Amino acid sequence: MERNIYLSNTDMEEAVARYLERLDPAISRVKKEAVDIREARGRVTAAPIIAKLSSPNHNAAAMDGIMVISDRTFSANETNPIVLNRGIDFEYINTGHLIVDPYDSVIMIEDIVALNPEQIRIMVQAAPWQHIRPIGEDIVAGEMILPENHLIRPMDIGAVLSGGVTEVLVYERIRVGILPTGNEITDNYESLAKGKIFDTNSWTFQAIVEELGGIAERISPVEDDYETLKKAISALAERNHIVIINAGSSAGSKDYTAQLVADLGELVLHGIAIKPGKPTILGMIGEKAVIGVPGYPGSAFLVFEEIVNPVIRALQRVATEKPTLARAIVSRRIVSTLKYREYIRVKLGMVGDKLIATPLNRGAGVTMALVKADGILVIPKNSEGYEAGEEAPVELVNDMAVIEKTIVSIGSHDLIMDHIGSILTRKGQTLSSAHVGSMGGIMAMKRGEAHIAPIHLLDEETGEYNQTYLEKYLAREEVALVKGVRREQGFMVACGNPKNIIRVEDLKRSDVIFVNRQKGSGTRILTDYLLKKNEIKSDEIRGYDRDMTTHMAVAAAVESGTADVGIGVASAARAMGLDFITIGFEEYDFVIPEKYMETDGIKSFLQVLRSQEFEQILKELGGYGM
Amino acid sequence: MERNIYLSNTDMEEAVARYLERLDPAISRVKKEAVDIREARGRVTAAPIIAKLSSPNHNAAAMDGIMVISDRTFSANETNPIVLNRGIDFEYINTGHLIVDPYDSVIMIEDIVALNPEQIRIMVQAAPWQHIRPIGEDIVAGEMILPENHLIRPMDIGAVLSGGVTEVLVYERIRVGILPTGNEITDNYESLAKGKIFDTNSWTFQAIVEELGGIAERISPVEDDYETLKKAISALAERNHIVIINAGSSAGSKDYTAQLVADLGELVLHGIAIKPGKPTILGMIGEKAVIGVPGYPGSAFLVFEEIVNPVIRALQRVATEKPTLARAIVSRRIVSTLKYREYIRVKLGMVGDKLIATPLNRGAGVTMALVKADGILVIPKNSEGYEAGEEAPVELVNDMAVIEKTIVSIGSHDLIMDHIGSILTRKGQTLSSAHVGSMGGIMAMKRGEAHIAPIHLLDEETGEYNQTYLEKYLAREEVALVKGVRREQGFMVACGNPKNIIRVEDLKRSDVIFVNRQKGSGTRILTDYLLKKNEIKSDEIRGYDRDMTTHMAVAAAVESGTADVGIGVASAARAMGLDFITIGFEEYDFVIPEKYMETDGIKSFLQVLRSQEFEQILKELGGYGM
Repeated sequence: MERNIYLSNTDMEEAVARYLERLDPAISRVKKEAVDIREARGRVTAAPIIAKLSSPNHNAAAMDGIMVISDRTFSANETNPIVLNRGIDFEYINTGHLIVDPYDSVIMIEDIVALNPEQIRIMVQAAPWQHIRPIGEDIVAGEMILPENHLIRPMDIGAVLSGGVTEVLVYERIRVGILPTGNEITDNYESLAKGKIFDTNSWTFQAIVEELGGIAERISPVEDDYETLKKAISALAERNHIVIINAGSSAGSKDYTAQLVADLGELVLHGIAIKPGKPTILGMIGEKAVIGVPGYPGSAFLVFEEIVNPVIRALQRVATEKPTLARAIVSRRIVSTLKYREYIRVKLGMVGDKLIATPLNRGAGVTMALVKADGILVIPKNSEGYEAGEEAPVELVNDMAVIEKTIVSIGSHDLIMDHIGSILTRKGQTLSSAHVGSMGGIMAMKRGEAHIAPIHLLDEETGEYNQTYLEKYLAREEVALVKGVRREQGFMVACGNPKNIIRVEDLKRSDVIFVNRQKGSGTRILTDYLLKKNEIKSDEIRGYDRDMTTHMAVAAAVESGTADVGIGVASAARAMGLDFITIGFEEYDFVIPEKYMETDGIKSFLQVLRSQEFEQILKELGGYGM
Repeated sequence: MERNIYLSNTDMEEAVARYLERLDPAISRVKKEAVDIREARGRVTAAPIIAKLSSPNHNAAAMDGIMVISDRTFSANETNPIVLNRGIDFEYINTGHLIVDPYDSVIMIEDIVALNPEQIRIMVQAAPWQHIRPIGEDIVAGEMILPENHLIRPMDIGAVLSGGVTEVLVYERIRVGILPTGNEITDNYESLAKGKIFDTNSWTFQAIVEELGGIAERISPVEDDYETLKKAISALAERNHIVIINAGSSAGSKDYTAQLVADLGELVLHGIAIKPGKPTILGMIGEKAVIGVPGYPGSAFLVFEEIVNPVIRALQRVATEKPTLARAIVSRRIVSTLKYREYIRVKLGMVGDKLIATPLNRGAGVTMALVKADGILVIPKNSEGYEAGEEAPVELVNDMAVIEKTIVSIGSHDLIMDHIGSILTRKGQTLSSAHVGSMGGIMAMKRGEAHIAPIHLLDEETGEYNQTYLEKYLAREEVALVKGVRREQGFMVACGNPKNIIRVEDLKRSDVIFVNRQKGSGTRILTDYLLKKNEIKSDEIRGYDRDMTTHMAVAAAVESGTADVGIGVASAARAMGLDFITIGFEEYDFVIPEKYMETDGIKSFLQVLRSQEFEQILKELGGYGM
């Protein structure tokens, strides 16, 4: 079973520059076509656009008022007003209308006194050509309105029409063939067999291509078979300017892409020093660009944005846009490898006067990190990353107007946070919810990095929730503890409870595999409290060391059968169709600094929390008390 | 003849906020519809999107390698490698593929030694669940993928599909009716009668609406007739969420818009404290938004961006984007009125390490300023503006990547600058050319605000061009004088030269009206030189005081018959179909600081200047010598 090895660890700029050089013949072969300017938004001019007519094509009034013969107004002044006769000395005129002989000046309506319909009085003389838009003031026939290689925007359409031009020469749209491949990939979205993965990247790619003004030709996933792939790639290369193969670009035994590109044309480069995205393939089939994009959604999206986008732009003859940067405080330590430039997606929020960046899950497969990101923190090659509290430049993905109105929640996870966040969008507010467990929330609060910290922390001595933790860890901060919801905690087990798990002691059984939550989470503290109370040691429990960061992930492990039981909330069990054995109710509350209590964001948050709509959602989710 | 008066001078924020409040019922009545997520880019979710399936829906290999039973690897280490048998202890697996029972761990391909097809050796133990993507790692069934009121982007499409969801509930597209009005407005672009103006705004509006994801219903221009307009507005309000009336919003005698809105519904506000754009009308017809947008393209575009855009966004339930700001040095004094917030479009360029902002023509009708602008300088109400050399915040219209590569030329105008600029786009470079006359160019060079200053300055004593001016004004600067083109100067007269103007003395004739160039321009200096040589005084010439800032504007004045003769270059006369009587050749050269001579921008500029293609363009334009 032969496997590929990565050919290189080339720096991205070098890789893109080298590849674009190779694409020169392809760029010069993009065709030109004539289109109506009114339908040309987003197209790129293939020749300068020269005005055929002047705009205005006549001397026009620049103000509402009267047109006059300036010579006849010279004697007018405040002490010597003069009277003008309509049809002889003046005529009424509206803005934009034609100045006709013998008139050569305009007086504003505000500066005249109408004596009767036929006579007016003026007290100021009119200079020749005052308040007149001279012919060609805006555009003169023969003037260049747009240069070549210009991306046509809405205002350009108006300008070109003003110059009397309707037909313009533009470059054809760039066509991008998109080929998903992999035996495990399916585009039947009706159902998903175990071991199969939905083809999702190709649709994201198609949407990006369309957003860039190109035309996407997406085909259904092609199986991992050399000959089948070869045929499909050749066909797409025939019809398109660019072919994207997703994936088969890695070093797996069925990763044919590099070989196929080499056999069909030329492998220009394999392997780029970025993370995620390393196993990218840049190749040529004849004069067509062929790019092997890695399969994981995180890698795929990054490679599309950083490499495919500039290639499409180059073929379109349009400059790639520079990202908008902001400086943010990194809320957690971020370690990066020296070998690659690393791209880390972050949530951003203004807490007090600090812009805080909280890194999202870095797993290359984490689609949700793409959805939730407000920005991208780019860590250069040869950098070890950032310490918590350090300032770093962040490329903005979301608009600063949205980020500034974001309520930042860091702490324990619960489904209700997403539901509150969804309702808040109606007021144009956003709730950014980072899941780091209850203790993580307390620490974030201490560092001043959150508006809200949701916690559910059991005091093992008193058996009470939350308040004693505030006294212990946040004694010096002025914070409020806002009552949230009561939440049912219990065992999540497979439907029908096949292993009959009902008591804490059952976790010790040798036929029972447990799945845990991460350290510092409220549920972990509850678990350890229960074990202690029942005098059970952690090493007596199979699976105690495998931990998950959310209730839903624990539920998913049970649902998939890799664990028999986990401890979590009823709503998560219900969402996954699991059985649930109640242990008790816990208190899921919110720590909020006093100084934010009267802000719009927190006021809205509390309003939703106390609303009837939210009460109804709790009922539907199940497992909550008030 | 009744005329309207402006009702108010309301601050923009207040006007928009007040109007949006009135639109609340309209917003709540925007309909919901189900669409396929694969076709939902740019749509806005009308309900949260909840994952139906987990992603991955199985435990999957996160690396290429082998899956193993972790228990059987515990004894492996560097001194004690162990051998595993295929089908019993391990199986090969590729990234993304299903982990099957009894395997519970993955070892990377790099960490194994294949002994034969059926046996491998390992030297490191495998921890349980290492290199395995657990079920639900990315998305867990029941999790919220997108909240409501979320604008769907390409990455969202992938995420929603990953969660097993294909159909999503979104809000219908916002429909905008666009009604151009005015008896002088025409949309027959084949020819333009004197006094008519092309309808250009409506197409720009349509393009903006489409860019925002809305649907535009543009109709042909409607005449200035109360009843006809009333019918057209009612019909559009029936079918659309928003109706734009352009224009009739001012105080002219035929500006019916305010009255019509009041009669059909309610006039919420008339008159906003912005410049341009003051006579804006905000109204309601039933629950439909009706906005009267002023007619001048500059005002129209600004009002569309600043007021109509937020209204469309509010109906779409999407936040209005915040502009990206940059700090720039203002190259010329900008005076603003205290009464309005003023928006001034500027060209931007990096000269040395300074970002220089040069204001474009402020006339409200100047479409070309919209096209050429790189940014907008917003001068607050109650501010008098900026002094030359002051730093000011500028909202970016163009991307900083483009601005940074822009070659800044300030000085005399010639058509060749646009042609050189157009050719430079092929290398991704932009030539920004500000027309302030030769002396203006010299001054800009002195202040370090330009890479290039094109000049053609005649020394009245020596009769030579340019060099002596450098010695006089730029003695202390290290600048080069690069030879440009020789340019024919002469009289531009109507076709057939009906007034038989052939000598300078003819300018004195009482039947001859002259049109001049502005002070400081090379042509003005030439004119004054010729008058002095011929002992003619300026007040002997009719029209001497009417000046234009470009050759083409002078040509246009002659073409339109408002002047009989002007002095300018042959290419301008030719472009306007005028006759041309040569006075002589002048030298149009370029002042370039020594320190920029070796930059990419200047090297490209000089390369184009010396190219065969440019020589050919000179021949086609006519009136140039080398």
